[in-house]
Amino acid sequence: MLAADLFPFVTRVRDRAPLVHCLTNLVVTNFTANVLLAIGAAPAMVVAREEVGEFAAVANALSVNLGTLDVPQSRAIRAAVEAANAAGTPWVLDPVAVGPLAFRTEFAFDLLDAKPAVIRGNASEIISLSGGAASGRGVDSTAATDAALDAAQVLALKTQAVVAVTGETDYVTDGRRVIALSNGSPLMTRVTGVGCALSATVAAFVGAVSDRDEFWAATVAAIAYSTIAGELAARDAALPGSFAVAYLDRLASLDEAAFGKTLVRRDIVSG
Amino acid sequence: MLAADLFPFVTRVRDRAPLVHCLTNLVVTNFTANVLLAIGAAPAMVVAREEVGEFAAVANALSVNLGTLDVPQSRAIRAAVEAANAAGTPWVLDPVAVGPLAFRTEFAFDLLDAKPAVIRGNASEIISLSGGAASGRGVDSTAATDAALDAAQVLALKTQAVVAVTGETDYVTDGRRVIALSNGSPLMTRVTGVGCALSATVAAFVGAVSDRDEFWAATVAAIAYSTIAGELAARDAALPGSFAVAYLDRLASLDEAAFGKTLVRRDIVSG
Amino acid sequence: MLAADLFPFVTRVRDRAPLVHCLTNLVVTNFTANVLLAIGAAPAMVVAREEVGEFAAVANALSVNLGTLDVPQSRAIRAAVEAANAAGTPWVLDPVAVGPLAFRTEFAFDLLDAKPAVIRGNASEIISLSGGAASGRGVDSTAATDAALDAAQVLALKTQAVVAVTGETDYVTDGRRVIALSNGSPLMTRVTGVGCALSATVAAFVGAVSDRDEFWAATVAAIAYSTIAGELAARDAALPGSFAVAYLDRLASLDEAAFGKTLVRRDIVSG
Repeated sequence: MLAADLFPFVTRVRDRAPLVHCLTNLVVTNFTANVLLAIGAAPAMVVAREEVGEFAAVANALSVNLGTLDVPQSRAIRAAVEAANAAGTPWVLDPVAVGPLAFRTEFAFDLLDAKPAVIRGNASEIISLSGGAASGRGVDSTAATDAALDAAQVLALKTQAVVAVTGETDYVTDGRRVIALSNGSPLMTRVTGVGCALSATVAAFVGAVSDRDEFWAATVAAIAYSTIAGELAARDAALPGSFAVAYLDRLASLDEAAFGKTLVRRDIVSG
Repeated sequence: MLAADLFPFVTRVRDRAPLVHCLTNLVVTNFTANVLLAIGAAPAMVVAREEVGEFAAVANALSVNLGTLDVPQSRAIRAAVEAANAAGTPWVLDPVAVGPLAFRTEFAFDLLDAKPAVIRGNASEIISLSGGAASGRGVDSTAATDAALDAAQVLALKTQAVVAVTGETDYVTDGRRVIALSNGSPLMTRVTGVGCALSATVAAFVGAVSDRDEFWAATVAAIAYSTIAGELAARDAALPGSFAVAYLDRLASLDEAAFGKTLVRRDIVSG
Repeated sequence: MLAADLFPFVTRVRDRAPLVHCLTNLVVTNFTANVLLAIGAAPAMVVAREEVGEFAAVANALSVNLGTLDVPQSRAIRAAVEAANAAGTPWVLDPVAVGPLAFRTEFAFDLLDAKPAVIRGNASEIISLSGGAASGRGVDSTAATDAALDAAQVLALKTQAVVAVTGETDYVTDGRRVIALSNGSPLMTRVTGVGCALSATVAAFVGAVSDRDEFWAATVAAIAYSTIAGELAARDAALPGSFAVAYLDRLASLDEAAFGKTLVRRDIVSG
C-alpha cells in the first residue's frame, strides 16, 4: 500500500466528518475529543445506559475503551455495542490493560463475541486477548510488538476483526493480510491518551467508509496518519507538554505531500 | 450596549473571583476549570449528591451541563439546583444535545421548572427546549443560529430566564431585549469544551453581580468577552492545539482597550 | 538538605519509573497522568472496586485525592487503601476541600486510621484534618500556610505520616523534622490540578524509595522538584495556557544544575 492508497481515507474523514461515539476512560476523554476534532471527525461522549442505544442509530462508529471500566460503564458498553450491531454501526475495541486485571479481562473476552470491526491494543493486550500469556504491568506493553504478530493473526481469524498491534512497529492484520508500519516518535508514549485516541481515530476512519472490505485499509490509514503526525510533531517540539500541542496541530494540518514523504512501511510481512 | 457598558462586568469577575460550582460533563471538566481560572473566577467541581446541596450555600453560581448525563448525576443536579434556589444562588443551564436524546431531553424540560437564571445552547438545543422540532446530530448545531432567535424569545418569556443562543452570531435575550454579537473564530468549534466552558463563564459573570436585573447584561458581557478572546487567539494560532493554549492566555489577559476595539455588535435586533 | 541530597530522589524516579495508581478527581485525571509521565513515572487510573485491590499488588504507590468524591469512589478508595496496606504499598492522601464539606471530611478522618505514608494539602485542609477549625471556601486555602505548621506537626505525630502543607511557602514535616521551601510561582494556582498532581508526584517519589525512613526526604524532593519546575516555567510563559505547557516541559527536562541553582530553602525551622 502506498501513500496514494491510504490518503484518500484521510480525505474521506475530512469530507464526511463521521460522528464517533466514544465510551472511553476518564483520563483521556478530553484529549480523545480534541484528536477527533483535529482530524475532522465529530466526537460524542454519550455515557448513560439510558442513551447509548438511541445514540448508536445516529453515530457513524463506536469506540470502546476499557481503561477505567467499572460496572455501570460495562452495562452502558454492552447496550451501546448491541445497538451498534443492530444498526450496522462498526465498533472498535481498545482492551486497555487486559491481561493482568480479571474484571476487565473477562469483560473483554465477552465483548469479542459482539463482533468488533477492529481491535487495537499493545502487544501485551493483544497476546492476552488471543488467549496467550502476556506479562504486563497495566498500560505499558512489556512484550515486544513483534511477538504479538502471531497473536494478532490468531485473534483476527477467531473474531473476524481487523487487529492492530501498536508499538515501535505497528502491525495491522485481518488474519490474511498484514502490514507493518514504522512511523511515530517515543514522545507519543510520554503524553497520556495518544494510544486511546488512536483507537477513536481508527473508529473515525472505519466510520467514514461504507464497505466492511475497506476496514483493514482504513485502519492502516488511521495508524499511518496518526504516527506520521506524531513523527512530524516531534520535529516541532522535543518535550511532552509542547509535543501534545504540536501533535494536535499536525493532526489538523497534515497534507498528502508530507504524508507521502514521511510514510515508512518497514516491512510488508504478507499481502 | 458599548464596550464601556460591558467591560465593568469583566472587572467585577476579576475583583470578586466568584466561586462557580460546576456539574458538567466528563469531557470538559479540566478545560472548564482552566477557563474559569483564566478569567479570574474560582471553579469547584463538587459532584456527589451528599455534598452538592451543602456546597450551594457557599458558591456564587452554579453551572449545570448535561453533556454526559447519567442517573446518579441527574440526582446530584436536582439536589444542587434545589439548594441553589433555596440559597438564592443563580444557576445556568447548558442543555447539551437536548432534542435527539429522550433521557436528557425529558430531564432538561423538568429543570426548566427550577428557574435557571440563564440558558445557553446552540440553535438546535434552544429550539428543542422551546418546544420546537430541531434537527441535530448530537452536539453540533445544524439549525442556523438565526432560526433560533424566535425560539429563544419564546423560551425566555416562558422561563423568565435569560436565553443565549451561540453560533456564528450569538443572540442574548431576556424575552424583551435582544442583542446580537458577532465575534469569535471557527477555531472555537475545533476545540472540545469551548461552548461548555462558555456556560460556566456566564455563571461566573452572573455570580459576580448582585442584582437579577443585571443578568442579561452580564450574560452579554460573558459571551462578548469569550468570543473576543477567541477571535484574538485565532490571530495568535491557526491550528487547534495551539489555539486552545492561546485562548486560555487571551482569556487571562484581555484588557478593555483590546476588548473595545474588537467588539462587533453586528445587529441590534431590539432593545 | 542541599540540592545534592534531594536530586538523587529525582534520578531514582527516572530510573525506576514507579507505577503510581491514582484514585483522583474527575477534573485532574488527564493532567495528573501527564505530570507523572513528564517526571518519568508510570500513571495508572484503575477505578473500579472490582479491580483496585488487585492493582495495589502491582503498583509502587497509591495516590488518593478526594476532589470529586462520591459513594462509589469512596468504596473503591477503601478497597485500594486496604490492599495497598496489605501489600506494603505506600499511599498518599490529598484531602481536597476537607473541612467545609461533611461527607468528605468524615471520610478523610476515617482514612487517617489507614496509615497514609504522606498527607499533602493546603493550610485549610491540614488544619481541618488536625482537628482545628479552618475557614475555607472549597479548594482555595484561605488560612496562611504558616498558620498550618503547628497543625501539620500535630497531624504528623498523630498519624505517623509525613505531612506537607503547600502554599506560598511549603512545609514538610514528619512531626520531628521540618523543612520550609520557597520556590514556585503564582501561575501554579492559575492552572487546575497543579496541586493535585503534586500529590501524585509525591506518591511517585515515595514509591521509588525502598525505606519508610526516606519518605520525609522523598516528599521534600518531590515538592522542591515540582515548585522549581513551576518557577522556571513561569520564566518561559507568563500566562496560564502556555504556562501549563511549559510546566510539563520543565518537569520533563529539569536537570540537577538548574535544580540546585534555583532551590530556595527560605527557612529551616528545625532538623
